[in-house]
Amino acid sequence: MILHIDMSNLTIKSQDVPEEYKGFGGRGLTSLIINREVPPTCHPLGIKNKLILAPGLLAGTMAPSSGRLSIGAKSPLTNGIKESNAGGMAGQYLGKLGIRAIVIEGKADRLYYAYLGEEKKLVEASDLKGLGNYDTVGYLQKKYGKHVAIISIGQVGEMCLCAATVAVTDMDGRPTRHAGRGGLGAVMGSKGLKAIVIDPKGAKGVVYADEKRFKEAAKRFSKALREHPGTGELLPTLGSNSLMKVVNGAGALPTRYFKTGQFERVDDVSGERQTEIIRERGGKIGHPCQAGCVIRCSRIYVDKEGKYITKGPEYETIWAHGPNLGISDLDAIARMDYLADDYGIDTIEMGNAIGVAMEAGIISFGDIKGVMGLYEEVSRGTPLGRILGSGAATVAKVFGISRVAVVKGQALPAYDPRAVKGIGVTYATSPMGADHTSGYTVRANILGIGEKVDPLAIEGQVELSKKMQVKTAALDCTGLCLFCTLMMAERPDTWDDLVEMINARYGLKLKTYEFFKLGERVLEIEHDFNRRAGLTKADDRLPEFFYNEPFPPHNTVFDIPDEELDNI
Amino acid sequence: MILHIDMSNLTIKSQDVPEEYKGFGGRGLTSLIINREVPPTCHPLGIKNKLILAPGLLAGTMAPSSGRLSIGAKSPLTNGIKESNAGGMAGQYLGKLGIRAIVIEGKADRLYYAYLGEEKKLVEASDLKGLGNYDTVGYLQKKYGKHVAIISIGQVGEMCLCAATVAVTDMDGRPTRHAGRGGLGAVMGSKGLKAIVIDPKGAKGVVYADEKRFKEAAKRFSKALREHPGTGELLPTLGSNSLMKVVNGAGALPTRYFKTGQFERVDDVSGERQTEIIRERGGKIGHPCQAGCVIRCSRIYVDKEGKYITKGPEYETIWAHGPNLGISDLDAIARMDYLADDYGIDTIEMGNAIGVAMEAGIISFGDIKGVMGLYEEVSRGTPLGRILGSGAATVAKVFGISRVAVVKGQALPAYDPRAVKGIGVTYATSPMGADHTSGYTVRANILGIGEKVDPLAIEGQVELSKKMQVKTAALDCTGLCLFCTLMMAERPDTWDDLVEMINARYGLKLKTYEFFKLGERVLEIEHDFNRRAGLTKADDRLPEFFYNEPFPPHNTVFDIPDEELDNI
Repeated sequence: MILHIDMSNLTIKSQDVPEEYKGFGGRGLTSLIINREVPPTCHPLGIKNKLILAPGLLAGTMAPSSGRLSIGAKSPLTNGIKESNAGGMAGQYLGKLGIRAIVIEGKADRLYYAYLGEEKKLVEASDLKGLGNYDTVGYLQKKYGKHVAIISIGQVGEMCLCAATVAVTDMDGRPTRHAGRGGLGAVMGSKGLKAIVIDPKGAKGVVYADEKRFKEAAKRFSKALREHPGTGELLPTLGSNSLMKVVNGAGALPTRYFKTGQFERVDDVSGERQTEIIRERGGKIGHPCQAGCVIRCSRIYVDKEGKYITKGPEYETIWAHGPNLGISDLDAIARMDYLADDYGIDTIEMGNAIGVAMEAGIISFGDIKGVMGLYEEVSRGTPLGRILGSGAATVAKVFGISRVAVVKGQALPAYDPRAVKGIGVTYATSPMGADHTSGYTVRANILGIGEKVDPLAIEGQVELSKKMQVKTAALDCTGLCLFCTLMMAERPDTWDDLVEMINARYGLKLKTYEFFKLGERVLEIEHDFNRRAGLTKADDRLPEFFYNEPFPPHNTVFDIPDEELDNI
Repeated sequence: MILHIDMSNLTIKSQDVPEEYKGFGGRGLTSLIINREVPPTCHPLGIKNKLILAPGLLAGTMAPSSGRLSIGAKSPLTNGIKESNAGGMAGQYLGKLGIRAIVIEGKADRLYYAYLGEEKKLVEASDLKGLGNYDTVGYLQKKYGKHVAIISIGQVGEMCLCAATVAVTDMDGRPTRHAGRGGLGAVMGSKGLKAIVIDPKGAKGVVYADEKRFKEAAKRFSKALREHPGTGELLPTLGSNSLMKVVNGAGALPTRYFKTGQFERVDDVSGERQTEIIRERGGKIGHPCQAGCVIRCSRIYVDKEGKYITKGPEYETIWAHGPNLGISDLDAIARMDYLADDYGIDTIEMGNAIGVAMEAGIISFGDIKGVMGLYEEVSRGTPLGRILGSGAATVAKVFGISRVAVVKGQALPAYDPRAVKGIGVTYATSPMGADHTSGYTVRANILGIGEKVDPLAIEGQVELSKKMQVKTAALDCTGLCLFCTLMMAERPDTWDDLVEMINARYGLKLKTYEFFKLGERVLEIEHDFNRRAGLTKADDRLPEFFYNEPFPPHNTVFDIPDEELDNI
């Protein structure tokens, strides 16, 4: 069923899944609903935009690492279509509850939260006004129990700022998993919806067309994940931050706001060091963010007294607040990550925004206290805080800076496109704006998993990015974690297992190539929306300075010709 | 000749006018040079953008009111092509000096000004850093004499903010004429150019192909301007603010940020009242902004002691800071106008930015002290000041407001498109963004001069706007003031006089219909640039609320169908 939460009329109604939407899940479903139901030229924070939440096709099943929740809307940051997905418990619970999508529409005058259990209701949330995600979740857990999953926004979402995230609680009930990119939290804030409580009590669970076949395929898939050195060993041990030294070694780690590709104090912020610290202090490594995850890349980062600071932090966050800002103090970065989770702001966008602020001379590179001060400005909603919370492009605009690393208004992640040209193609051409997860060529360009494409060459990058964008769009329909593809790239047979799981779940006879076609279809739907929203090939470009400013140590520029980008 | 001021290499070079650029002047020439020489996807504040200054085809001649100076660039506000023109003395002097265009390119590390007399040089301008336009002009006049014309930016341009203007000195040597719209001052600031001093000493003056024929046509044209009730009587007496009561009477005066169409205290801010005050206090009315103007719509506004406060102020400024903000104190508005001229910020954009700030609750409607405080924030470059200086769209973004009156990022002028639908078509479809001067349908919709098209009807608006956009684009090539068209609409024969002047000046045999073709050509050049810059039909729309929110007293919405807009 599809749930419609109408914030104008304060109603919650359920609807059977329309014929046209069947076969779509996760990103495929959020993008299709947006394409069909949201006027492409509407104001992203206006009454006509809709916020869509959809678990993947395999949500609630015993497929490993399959509970990612897709959240989509017209983005206030990119002005195009957006999907951002998060781990945590909500996706699996929605799957078990038989809820294929939640469509949030209209606009309320006051702040509400939604409770979705056997009963479904909207409750006025004046007590939650101005609270961070941690307090919001604490309040709701006190009321409804620790067993619920909570989707919420912090102060940044309430303020409708473009870098606002939507938080999802993890296995421990903490709001640490975020649909981070594109300002989806601002869309939720604009609707007047502070949180959604998902109560799985009494959920019927998933009915399989062929449970036995499903189990077998799931078992094969899990085994492959466990056996692969990346998903079975590296990620559980070093987490996503295992990338830090690798990307630095490749000269592709954007340092001090995209000035050089190597950070002189990389060892202080590496995954190795992070794991060492966590082990010394009695934190946790190999900690899953959702039940049923076999990769378990997350971790609990604690202070010297063993007290919880935050989850992870993840590679992107450590990069954005570390090398990117000339900072090498992991404890400080962990505290920044906590604030970002609590206020509900995208760590990539905020790290970039602070980078631009450093370029503008507001604080200096390396100034930890300064960064903490800027976070406080954000939470208080001061003019400076609101500028930062609006993202890197707005900081640049307001401070008259033309050297700003954004595509379609969205800030770049932790791989410089001059040293990893494939990811530059993805940044430029993805319907999502600069987003590493929509076509992660780093796997082939840097990690050399599955295949190897020279990261500095022009040749092969467009093909590589295109192929990965298609496969990712397909995978994002299932709820599976992107990290699975590290294994799948070397075990093509597991794509068949994945399709087998979908078939056994729904009683379908999908072929693997047809599944990839679904990825193409999703991209078409997204590009079609963007085209009607007014985006053109002129938006499929990297910022000027990547073409002009050689990037040490390779001293290369981004030189994939525009025509090649346009041929994707 | 064309002058190239290269701010990267600190050189000034002259070039013969290339064949392709001949026959173009003013807006036609700025737009053509931008189309040919500026990469459409470049960053507007980056090294690849160029700022072009071009007087009209009749600059420096004895044609009346013909000294307007066109300034153009890729706009940081609209991200499209921009031309904004200003009165004052610079246009005429450039004409007499035989300078057809000044092309400012590259970027300097420090601040400079250019001196263009018999000698031409760039001079370091560290003394001028952070000065407003009045002090800048004072400093340069002390150095070079009162007879020079000065083009300059204030603090807002130095900060590269999107609402920054380029100021041009008037007949009294004051920086009161502004190329206001689209943030051209930010482009000048990004180049590191604070001012241009134009010294007409030793200028050879204009050589006519047929001086006698020119004189005769100019005489006929001047006579027609003097005899017309609009240009010969109303404008000299009441100035542009003669519009206030008329537009209010038509229910089209956007009041309290576009909420209603009539202001209850309109009499306090009317042109009639303004003239009365100026007369009582011994200011000046019927004061030309440039030599050779027969319309003389400007005025000198003085305080109770007879001391100069500012010029005008003009209708748009009085609206933007008056009815738009719920303010009816003309003295206060005059002081705001002075600050805007001094800091170098567009009064339309700033009035709108403050309107959004009032919607966001930062200050209240009617709060004069609050407005003065916001102006001070701008001049000091505080975060809030920079937000405001970036224009209404940025204020809305940073404060999470979705109801914002901008097209292509540029704020709306003083005519509500729900009550003057023709001007709504111009706002939506002009390559310049929301701009009343690019197709002033108010003449036919409200004033009924030349023709009458019902302002509330759907029919006829697109045709009206289109015709006016074409004629305006042609007129903007000549340097003539737009106000001339009030007369020309009722005296079609004067279009022939205008073309006769061009022919007699250059020895051409242009027909009047060919002159209108020039207007079409200019629009094509501009739309072509915008298309390549990534603007589409999705950008040719008014903001959502004009379609949804009925506007009292007529309680109409903007309802010209998208397809009609697209057919323009």
